[in-house]
Amino acid sequence: MEAPELAVTQWFNTPAPIALAALRGRVVFLHAFQMLCPGCVAHGTPQAKKAHELFQNSDLAVIGLHTVFEHHAAMTPVSLEAFIHEYQLSFPIGVDQPGENGPIPVTMARYRMRGTPTAILIGRDGAIRHHGFGQEDDMALGAVIATLLSEPTPP
Amino acid sequence: MEAPELAVTQWFNTPAPIALAALRGRVVFLHAFQMLCPGCVAHGTPQAKKAHELFQNSDLAVIGLHTVFEHHAAMTPVSLEAFIHEYQLSFPIGVDQPGENGPIPVTMARYRMRGTPTAILIGRDGAIRHHGFGQEDDMALGAVIATLLSEPTPP
Amino acid sequence: MEAPELAVTQWFNTPAPIALAALRGRVVFLHAFQMLCPGCVAHGTPQAKKAHELFQNSDLAVIGLHTVFEHHAAMTPVSLEAFIHEYQLSFPIGVDQPGENGPIPVTMARYRMRGTPTAILIGRDGAIRHHGFGQEDDMALGAVIATLLSEPTPP
Amino acid sequence: MEAPELAVTQWFNTPAPIALAALRGRVVFLHAFQMLCPGCVAHGTPQAKKAHELFQNSDLAVIGLHTVFEHHAAMTPVSLEAFIHEYQLSFPIGVDQPGENGPIPVTMARYRMRGTPTAILIGRDGAIRHHGFGQEDDMALGAVIATLLSEPTPP
Repeated sequence: MEAPELAVTQWFNTPAPIALAALRGRVVFLHAFQMLCPGCVAHGTPQAKKAHELFQNSDLAVIGLHTVFEHHAAMTPVSLEAFIHEYQLSFPIGVDQPGENGPIPVTMARYRMRGTPTAILIGRDGAIRHHGFGQEDDMALGAVIATLLSEPTPP
Repeated sequence: MEAPELAVTQWFNTPAPIALAALRGRVVFLHAFQMLCPGCVAHGTPQAKKAHELFQNSDLAVIGLHTVFEHHAAMTPVSLEAFIHEYQLSFPIGVDQPGENGPIPVTMARYRMRGTPTAILIGRDGAIRHHGFGQEDDMALGAVIATLLSEPTPP
Repeated sequence: MEAPELAVTQWFNTPAPIALAALRGRVVFLHAFQMLCPGCVAHGTPQAKKAHELFQNSDLAVIGLHTVFEHHAAMTPVSLEAFIHEYQLSFPIGVDQPGENGPIPVTMARYRMRGTPTAILIGRDGAIRHHGFGQEDDMALGAVIATLLSEPTPP
Repeated sequence: MEAPELAVTQWFNTPAPIALAALRGRVVFLHAFQMLCPGCVAHGTPQAKKAHELFQNSDLAVIGLHTVFEHHAAMTPVSLEAFIHEYQLSFPIGVDQPGENGPIPVTMARYRMRGTPTAILIGRDGAIRHHGFGQEDDMALGAVIATLLSEPTPP
């Protein structure tokens, strides 16, 4: 399944908005989280940070997505910005566009995510290759990323 | 040194405001934290939660104090309330009163805290008996609490 | 219940054999373990080591007891000595005397231990005050030790 | 550099001796350890166990190698067998052949290992592709394994 485009209202850690379409040919690790989700803070977000450092000289693009679907007033971009600063996150992070008909934001709905953290891996051809909810094992995730990186770039 | 009184503008997890004066005769574990302080979230706050559970049938009173001294707009009571819900904290938590002449809140200044997390133990006589900044060892903290609990109640 | 005396065939980390009778008036933390017991190596033995360091200026005596009840040929004193060296254990450790009628060694049987690790706390009066099998929480253990240390020395 | 052949005096968890020559075409994770090496027990050996489970349906062969270079009398095959049982290791484990002129066993010397744990990855072509001493990061190791698995089998 082709990865849907991101719908982001505000970006951090990037000089310009990011579109998946422009990353075609690269592997993308999309880390969906909420700043007040304990499993994200303890595992998911540190894991995305580690992947960002470990694969920094590769074709992997790590992108954070703040998919707020609860406690909306508590997790505004102002609070997210402080969170990013305190946890020293340097990969690009986008704020998922609020949904029009409910608490689920737009990108989260497009990807049919079940909650946070969610780890999505997109191959060089733009297809979703991994879609995991909850705690991911580091070794398994490293293997998935390396496998996708080893695939040839589509013409 | 006698423990200064708390200056709190809003309480969570308690039907009525708490004054240290009313806790004289009991041992008090004052856990000062900020919801976006990584060391608090990873160590200090879970430790306070564990102490609250472990000593629930004793004379120990565990009190959280949200001592915001940075990123004030990011850590409002609205965000704190969601944090308390998500991390399932059930001990009383007060919001330290904002300082008039700077970023340091009132109670934090009274206790001359150096940052967060800070663990303060107050004996049955109302005196500060332990004042620790940063990560505390669980075994050492359990020993300090038990030692204070073993002391006789002053007349 | 009064703590039974130790039956030890060989001691490490002490210039002379240790008898509980000679420790009357002090608090004793008896850490029963096997060098090839995963729960001992991961939790119980490091916890005894931490207690030994944390309470080094107190009346606590930490004593290790190698209670081999399985794989006897694999956990001889020769192997134990290397284990003690590699894990840098400096508290006294005794080898529990082999049982005459089965795999359970003598002291282990006297204390009716169910397995390893077992943590036993003996009060200043020589009575067993805590008898725990498996992983003990650091904070809870620190509290038990401090409580026993706070008790007056019997005449 | 082509991986030297193993020199093993005794095998566990395999019906027949294993030769690297017979594994040509597969990827090999050689985990060198000592049963009384704390860093092996805490990190290296559990990591090899995890890799064995994670890649069980792949072309990866995980092989343990007990490279005893100190405390020889303490880490005999009898003790190793109990260790394997207690830590529930199911991948093949060989006992490195004792050296003739010193404490370093034969395979350990052939690979010029500096200590334990050592993680060696051998590619499908039989060449050493990774040679790491000490604690390896799970994500990095998973990536190395997957990268080697993605390479074509040599003719």
